[in-house]
Amino acid sequence: MEYSSKLLEQAVFEVAQLPGIGKRSAMRLVLHLLKQPAQQTEQLANALQKFRNEIKYCKNCHNLCDEEWCEICMNKNRDTTLICVVEDVRDVMAIENTGFYKGLYHVLGGKISPIDGVGPNQLNIQSLVEKVLTQDINEVIFALSATIEGDTTMFYIVKQLGTKNIILSTIARGIAVGDELEYADELTLGRSIQQRIPYKDN
Amino acid sequence: MEYSSKLLEQAVFEVAQLPGIGKRSAMRLVLHLLKQPAQQTEQLANALQKFRNEIKYCKNCHNLCDEEWCEICMNKNRDTTLICVVEDVRDVMAIENTGFYKGLYHVLGGKISPIDGVGPNQLNIQSLVEKVLTQDINEVIFALSATIEGDTTMFYIVKQLGTKNIILSTIARGIAVGDELEYADELTLGRSIQQRIPYKDN
Repeated sequence: MEYSSKLLEQAVFEVAQLPGIGKRSAMRLVLHLLKQPAQQTEQLANALQKFRNEIKYCKNCHNLCDEEWCEICMNKNRDTTLICVVEDVRDVMAIENTGFYKGLYHVLGGKISPIDGVGPNQLNIQSLVEKVLTQDINEVIFALSATIEGDTTMFYIVKQLGTKNIILSTIARGIAVGDELEYADELTLGRSIQQRIPYKDN
Repeated sequence: MEYSSKLLEQAVFEVAQLPGIGKRSAMRLVLHLLKQPAQQTEQLANALQKFRNEIKYCKNCHNLCDEEWCEICMNKNRDTTLICVVEDVRDVMAIENTGFYKGLYHVLGGKISPIDGVGPNQLNIQSLVEKVLTQDINEVIFALSATIEGDTTMFYIVKQLGTKNIILSTIARGIAVGDELEYADELTLGRSIQQRIPYKDN
């Protein structure tokens, strides 16, 4: 593309580095900023830089936070004997939004995926194992992706935990609420029959 | 949504102000920055701010540029008697990319659209009329959207130009190259028959 301005070209180039944003979308976004008050661009740029430079990871659960420990880990009302293992910060937010969970979390930062070059050492697995083995933990809930990588990660962690007497569980897999049976894939439907639950628990 | 960090919340909020980007996409983009070197966020923020604060509009054609005049208007090899009227900076780039046009441009900055509160005074129409009436211009080509707003804008400008003896033309409307006839709408197909061109010009 021929740009009439180096400043425009540079801005489009940088925005187009973001995932899922091509040059055309980047151009649309950048030109949009021009129609808004300069203050908005200022705030956007500052928020991104401040976020990138000052954000911290919780020392206990590796969730994103502004202090040493995140609000969930510092909350005295939560069940500290329960750990929910998730891949990502977004998963913490998704589960928090359900309002159904009152324990703590542990953010792995991804899943074991040799194809992407992610091994156990790139993930926060060691700190999870130490926490479970040394602290008073009753149950570890695995809330990982229902994929081969998710399952591999779960099996790896379970092996590391050895024989310590704790409850290990995974979140239920089955037909999503609101879904029609005919569109469900066979594996999901099969597991939802195998792991059927008593009518009264529904 | 519950955010574990105010910095994250602020960054997501600012990114979600951009058009077509919701909170979930904004979150994905912001978390992506975290996986990249801090330098990338720095460059992105700087490029946006520099662009917003230092970009200029060409004094002749209102195209975006870094100097007083844009490169197209300063190019001695271009035909200064030919003006192509477009809505937007992106249209200039699109036409430049075809390589078929060697005249100058005039960027209106939009089209007359009472519904959106855009009248002739919000657009760069006055400077176009002055340029055409006072300078040595042979032809004005309208390359506006094929919509009611585009047509209204064109008619308004033509009226303003009065009876000065210049060629007025619009870009051809018809079946796009590569399109199949059966999917073309009736209006387009009708106009492409009315405004058919000699076989040898094809």
